[in-house]
Amino acid sequence: MVHITRRERFNAAHRLFRAEWNDEKNMQVFGKCSNPNWHGHNYELFVTVKGELNPETGFVINLKLLSEIIKEKVTSKLDHKNVNLEVEFMTGKLASSENLAVAIWNELEEDINKLGAKLYSVKLIETENNFVEYYGE
Amino acid sequence: MVHITRRERFNAAHRLFRAEWNDEKNMQVFGKCSNPNWHGHNYELFVTVKGELNPETGFVINLKLLSEIIKEKVTSKLDHKNVNLEVEFMTGKLASSENLAVAIWNELEEDINKLGAKLYSVKLIETENNFVEYYGE
Amino acid sequence: MVHITRRERFNAAHRLFRAEWNDEKNMQVFGKCSNPNWHGHNYELFVTVKGELNPETGFVINLKLLSEIIKEKVTSKLDHKNVNLEVEFMTGKLASSENLAVAIWNELEEDINKLGAKLYSVKLIETENNFVEYYGE
Amino acid sequence: MVHITRRERFNAAHRLFRAEWNDEKNMQVFGKCSNPNWHGHNYELFVTVKGELNPETGFVINLKLLSEIIKEKVTSKLDHKNVNLEVEFMTGKLASSENLAVAIWNELEEDINKLGAKLYSVKLIETENNFVEYYGE
Amino acid sequence: MVHITRRERFNAAHRLFRAEWNDEKNMQVFGKCSNPNWHGHNYELFVTVKGELNPETGFVINLKLLSEIIKEKVTSKLDHKNVNLEVEFMTGKLASSENLAVAIWNELEEDINKLGAKLYSVKLIETENNFVEYYGE
Amino acid sequence: MVHITRRERFNAAHRLFRAEWNDEKNMQVFGKCSNPNWHGHNYELFVTVKGELNPETGFVINLKLLSEIIKEKVTSKLDHKNVNLEVEFMTGKLASSENLAVAIWNELEEDINKLGAKLYSVKLIETENNFVEYYGE
Repeated sequence: MVHITRRERFNAAHRLFRAEWNDEKNMQVFGKCSNPNWHGHNYELFVTVKGELNPETGFVINLKLLSEIIKEKVTSKLDHKNVNLEVEFMTGKLASSENLAVAIWNELEEDINKLGAKLYSVKLIETENNFVEYYGE
Repeated sequence: MVHITRRERFNAAHRLFRAEWNDEKNMQVFGKCSNPNWHGHNYELFVTVKGELNPETGFVINLKLLSEIIKEKVTSKLDHKNVNLEVEFMTGKLASSENLAVAIWNELEEDINKLGAKLYSVKLIETENNFVEYYGE
Repeated sequence: MVHITRRERFNAAHRLFRAEWNDEKNMQVFGKCSNPNWHGHNYELFVTVKGELNPETGFVINLKLLSEIIKEKVTSKLDHKNVNLEVEFMTGKLASSENLAVAIWNELEEDINKLGAKLYSVKLIETENNFVEYYGE
Repeated sequence: MVHITRRERFNAAHRLFRAEWNDEKNMQVFGKCSNPNWHGHNYELFVTVKGELNPETGFVINLKLLSEIIKEKVTSKLDHKNVNLEVEFMTGKLASSENLAVAIWNELEEDINKLGAKLYSVKLIETENNFVEYYGE
Repeated sequence: MVHITRRERFNAAHRLFRAEWNDEKNMQVFGKCSNPNWHGHNYELFVTVKGELNPETGFVINLKLLSEIIKEKVTSKLDHKNVNLEVEFMTGKLASSENLAVAIWNELEEDINKLGAKLYSVKLIETENNFVEYYGE
Repeated sequence: MVHITRRERFNAAHRLFRAEWNDEKNMQVFGKCSNPNWHGHNYELFVTVKGELNPETGFVINLKLLSEIIKEKVTSKLDHKNVNLEVEFMTGKLASSENLAVAIWNELEEDINKLGAKLYSVKLIETENNFVEYYGE
């Protein structure tokens, strides 16, 4: 049983706010992250998959396939996009790193399981000082 | 004569586009960087100053003062902002890294010269793969 | 249940030694790390907290509060200090990274629990080649 | 119980291929990684050990000893070598990162246990985008 | 006049040796880098271009075009290759980082000049401890 | 003419202060960096040498020799030391990064010139936010 991790990156805009709160309340809770004119990040995404080694290939999973799944299901939908306005799988959700990591997990899980491995964790780095990890539960 | 460098960071949204071009033309020239809904980056800014060593302090410049100048004149105006919409010193300019580096130089030069040193370069990292440097000419 | 991590940094001096051992014995066990004139490091501290997502904010914990707790309880007491001589919560303890990580955990646990989350791990990087992690047990 | 990690590095050549497959089949499964003329990497190896703190030293394990074990048993055999042709403990195995991590675990486990600690994980970074971890089971 | 830099990466095998020297002499001069079974690196390549800003685009050069030139002329020929055996522009040259940087400059200069900018430097990182830079003279 | 750079590292304690000033004045000028109980850093040192390529070896300079010179003349005297108290070549000088970079240049220049190359720059990184460079004049 080995864990293997693929890093992919995307650059996106977002803001933290609740539509039912006024600007003052949003600013109080979310601070400068609620700027109505948006801000953005260079996100780094680490997807970790766990599985037995295939004796023929010495692989848990073909990393090229893993990379393609992450690009198709996740980073192509996020890169150079606005997380709040343009990302279908984030519709109706606060664009926090926590919610984004959980949503990315849900986008990836099924396709990765089809490859015969198990999604183990999604790690999303927002800045060099802040990151989140989700383990599916 | 020693060069000393201070790094500061800011997270901002931007897009590349010319108002007089339609979306198709903007997309053709700027690609996904012209997305009308914005995207963003974790920018890293390296400001390098050059000068003689002060024999009393062993300093080219007091780095605390340099950091305060950069924050007051540059990063406080850019952090968690939209470069196109909210940054006075970028008004009317394309929000490219090149233009941003030149504008940051212009914001900093006078205040740094007052400290008795000379601004040597502004380096602006947009992503781990792309950065620009401006030397004032 | 999401894990969220905040990085903070501090620069400190320390030495490894036991007062009841002579210099020769200390040098034999701790090598150059027992230099009586001290040496120092740029420490990086990663504090990981685990919790349910608050449905109103999309947060495990407000990272601004977490950062303030870490600064108040830990890094303000360590930054530009001598770990052996000036850090109350290390009094009477060997200034190893292991002991420091455990002591940092003890400083942080109560205040983080009051925020409704659970301290998950403390990771302390001493050099690019050496780091320790403590999970509270 | 604290986890402590030591990083060591090695630069090596390798290729992915099965001798019983022809070049076409190898290329189809392993892509450019099966180039018969080899390619190579700057590998980073993180060895994590877990144990109680020794009350006399404040250590889980003497990192100098851990570093020496890793060098003797692993990196001296891999650095500036060809993983497929010159590394005895990889004989007969596909030179994937997954197999390499498992083989490194097997090289290290006994010697580390003799020091009174427990090998916890082997993390092997092949590129900035790809790494594997093995926890011994 | 702004400098802009694009990073590209490639993983390759190489060895340092002179065919007219015997193994002993090669080992004496080049050490373990002359291992006849090869070793390899994750090379990082930074290509810096200098030019006036295009007032229409705010660009020195279109980074997408620069990246394509680097891939076509350089990294596609080096990635997952053996520098000594498979890289036409290195034929008959010692596969040192110095020679590689100069050869990369020669591959790139003409195509970059055609874009109306000037190649300023080629920086080639071989390991985290060693890198070379070439400025064209 | 190629530039080649070797990185070496050292961990040291220091403080910024002038003996003829009282603690209050030192604190006012140098801030927490003047703490009488010391603090410390993981310093990174980049030594850049410039020269013609040796046609026999493809080298500007043998990096193994360069590394040995840096260790003998510089890092062995600084690593796990107190810059103010134990480093002969810093005696009587303020232990600022600027002074340290100049002093390191002076330690290295003669030995590097003997190898037939020219010392080009000394870059000293004190923290991820602060570094200095000295070019010998």
